[in-house]
Amino acid sequence: MTHALYQPIELAFRGEAAVPAGSVAPVTVTFRHDSGEEVSVDGFWDGGTAYRARFLPEAEGAWTWEVARSLTPLDQTSGSFDVAAAEGHGPVRVAETFHFAHADGTPFRPVGATVYNWIHQDEPLVSDTVASLRDAGFNKLRFMVFPQAGGSVEHTPTLMPFEKTDDRWDVTRPVPEFFQRLDGLVRDLGEAGIEADVLILNAYDRGVFGLDELTEEEDAIYVRYLVSRLAAFPHVWWSLCNEYDQLLRPEDRWDRLGEFVARIDPYDHPRSIHNWMHIFDNNRPWVTHASIQNGSVTEAPGRARTYRDAYYKPIVLDEIKYEGDAEARWGRLSAKELVDRFWITTIEGCYASHGESFVTDSGSLHIVEGGRLRGDSPARLGFLRGVLDDLVVPGLNPIDKWDDPEYGAGWAPKQYLIYLGSSAPAAWRIRIPIGYADETKPQEGDRYAVDLIDTWNMTITRAGTFALDEVHRDFAFAGSDPIAIPEGEAIAVRLTRADLA
Amino acid sequence: MTHALYQPIELAFRGEAAVPAGSVAPVTVTFRHDSGEEVSVDGFWDGGTAYRARFLPEAEGAWTWEVARSLTPLDQTSGSFDVAAAEGHGPVRVAETFHFAHADGTPFRPVGATVYNWIHQDEPLVSDTVASLRDAGFNKLRFMVFPQAGGSVEHTPTLMPFEKTDDRWDVTRPVPEFFQRLDGLVRDLGEAGIEADVLILNAYDRGVFGLDELTEEEDAIYVRYLVSRLAAFPHVWWSLCNEYDQLLRPEDRWDRLGEFVARIDPYDHPRSIHNWMHIFDNNRPWVTHASIQNGSVTEAPGRARTYRDAYYKPIVLDEIKYEGDAEARWGRLSAKELVDRFWITTIEGCYASHGESFVTDSGSLHIVEGGRLRGDSPARLGFLRGVLDDLVVPGLNPIDKWDDPEYGAGWAPKQYLIYLGSSAPAAWRIRIPIGYADETKPQEGDRYAVDLIDTWNMTITRAGTFALDEVHRDFAFAGSDPIAIPEGEAIAVRLTRADLA
Repeated sequence: MTHALYQPIELAFRGEAAVPAGSVAPVTVTFRHDSGEEVSVDGFWDGGTAYRARFLPEAEGAWTWEVARSLTPLDQTSGSFDVAAAEGHGPVRVAETFHFAHADGTPFRPVGATVYNWIHQDEPLVSDTVASLRDAGFNKLRFMVFPQAGGSVEHTPTLMPFEKTDDRWDVTRPVPEFFQRLDGLVRDLGEAGIEADVLILNAYDRGVFGLDELTEEEDAIYVRYLVSRLAAFPHVWWSLCNEYDQLLRPEDRWDRLGEFVARIDPYDHPRSIHNWMHIFDNNRPWVTHASIQNGSVTEAPGRARTYRDAYYKPIVLDEIKYEGDAEARWGRLSAKELVDRFWITTIEGCYASHGESFVTDSGSLHIVEGGRLRGDSPARLGFLRGVLDDLVVPGLNPIDKWDDPEYGAGWAPKQYLIYLGSSAPAAWRIRIPIGYADETKPQEGDRYAVDLIDTWNMTITRAGTFALDEVHRDFAFAGSDPIAIPEGEAIAVRLTRADLA
Repeated sequence: MTHALYQPIELAFRGEAAVPAGSVAPVTVTFRHDSGEEVSVDGFWDGGTAYRARFLPEAEGAWTWEVARSLTPLDQTSGSFDVAAAEGHGPVRVAETFHFAHADGTPFRPVGATVYNWIHQDEPLVSDTVASLRDAGFNKLRFMVFPQAGGSVEHTPTLMPFEKTDDRWDVTRPVPEFFQRLDGLVRDLGEAGIEADVLILNAYDRGVFGLDELTEEEDAIYVRYLVSRLAAFPHVWWSLCNEYDQLLRPEDRWDRLGEFVARIDPYDHPRSIHNWMHIFDNNRPWVTHASIQNGSVTEAPGRARTYRDAYYKPIVLDEIKYEGDAEARWGRLSAKELVDRFWITTIEGCYASHGESFVTDSGSLHIVEGGRLRGDSPARLGFLRGVLDDLVVPGLNPIDKWDDPEYGAGWAPKQYLIYLGSSAPAAWRIRIPIGYADETKPQEGDRYAVDLIDTWNMTITRAGTFALDEVHRDFAFAGSDPIAIPEGEAIAVRLTRADLA
């Protein structure tokens, strides 16, 4: 059989007895590549005496597999397959310290969305959510495996993740239909080009379902099962919890859970933990990128970048307040404010996630139940995503990070992005910040294509191509005459070295 | 003999042979308190066959001591002494997560100064430095043990810390006169009420002295010697290096050095490491407080506070640019700008250090050689120190840290400080931010004394005492009429609950 690189391969087994879930996987399979590379993968129970093991190949060529251990005799124990040309770009991982790229090297710039209780809704809401996010251009979705309860939730799910024993959730008895549905929804996201940022636990149970009362051992059994099912999907990310510190658990319990996920995920998918008031120590080794709630750092330049120097990891600002008309102060940003925050985040060398808090027909919010987006920001964020996708460099970093009053970002000397703010001046003198790295300093005579990006009206206009004619200690200038800017608009200027434009 | 609590006790020994320095101390003494508490202290060689062991008692009552180990036979090996009432407040340690307090509980609010090459100057410069800092009201000084070379340095020291063997510094042969002088200067700071923030290594050798070319093992021998000499002074702080990342050393070498200092210092003095462009991982356990160079976070509110959430340790912004007329962009702040930065830092719940970069008579700068201060900021920073000393609470924390547009800091519900910025409005409605902690929420009817603090003209004016008459979700108000403010001035408002004012 021939499979595509970066696409999951599923082995289906039949056992002699049902071994649903526990602290060891019911079956473990070793995959061996011609090169000698080995990957050990946990399989999972899928109802009755059915077992599956999913594998994500990251190398072309001939592979063999064999069951390394099984808790029940299986109907097959070894096999082989070939992996040919890639479909897709493979899992996302950290690249260039502050950014992301797929396994094949293609940069990934998250412009994410948030629908916490998405998988617990009925149709057409579930499909509408994916279609609407895809159409807007979002490329990542944060959603919770466990159902949300309490405020703004107008829906009780029919499927729950576990059976109950003695009126208590029994994590050793997962409900296959629940997780089969989850598999399908994760696949749907993949087909829509949206990374699945899976919130493993949830802080919004509020005593309704009791899924936040699992012990640490029970959490581990559940997480092993979840990872066994989902890790082979190339587009999966792990977030331990949204607003983790709303749950009264010691920080070291979260730390152990993060280490556990890192240990059992064969593919090293991105891992994070998202805060309410207490930011987690994102310097912990298992944290691949900081997922931070602090919308205030996106209000003005010079703030979000501080997290880069604290963690030296990609910074994703998840929850920067929402576009909407909710009463709470976190839910009533205008579209212009939210789009402005995204562009500020961009020139801070960070990433952000969108959420919409208009009250929906059911009396809920889009961030809870999803559906069609109604706001004016999604189209502009799709436009931003296009600008990010078109970058000719691995990512944008603040250039002269603590001194440039214009807060220019870029990748010296190839490309720069300067965001003039939500109210641009009428004229701007072409100026590139220099910073401290001598080897990437732009030189007099270097030519740059200058594009004016209207971030709200979604236009990109070439202002011309200009040669640098003054290179000082801190700035390089092109021409002494300023160029005209659409005054009062939210304008970004993109400068691309002429050979790359 | 009777000694004062929190004052160093020195035992003087005579050995049979000279054992200058090495990877173990020449003598180790165990001090035992009546309560059973034991402290093990390394002694040090002090020239010829003289050895000393210094001990800082932190408990009153009867103590005995005995030599636990010695590399040469000594003239005395045990003894006893009593410790009576305290002189001073004892060593500074972290208090309430983000702040500092002396061992006796007295809060310590650093308003520090910076004279890197201080100990390498001649008189009267050395004494003038201390007198001028004391008169201005600074309570901490950052200075380097090793001499600075290169830019702005107009002085070559006569005393060096080590002898040379084969034209290479021999750390096993410290120069007693160098360190005796250092002892005396550290004592002078103590008498002036100034904490000694000792920069153990230095990144400004620039190939002149070669003291930055010691191996890791040599560093350890030197550091053991230095700590043995200085740790018993109650007012010592350790900073591994200024701008550590100007030295091309792997980060884990710094990490091991920090752990080493933590292990060998019996008194757990404050420990930090100060960056140039790459902020150290201040979440490392040995780091007691973050010593950060990033002046830009003191330019506007909402920035410096991000470091608090990254590290959950006190944040001291060392090097926020200097008052002066130097050409470099780090050395030409106006006094008003620098004072404004300190007040912003204060309401961010952080601390800052001063430095002056007017060119001195010798052609150097005050931050290098010291002497009399000339700027207009020191008096205002002394005034700020007075305001901090007068706080009736352990420290100031941002109250509604990511949402209050006025960036009010305080300790709810006892005392608040709101800095209206360098250009105050003509009128201000009395308003206290509330944040998230229900138990410290101010209540309707609570009365507060309101003081207007003119941070530049150094006046404090009581505007009156007001009762809160509107308590909403995010703010509590007193009176619907705004109070008058000296328009255009740099005004802070202090609100103290009436029973504490």
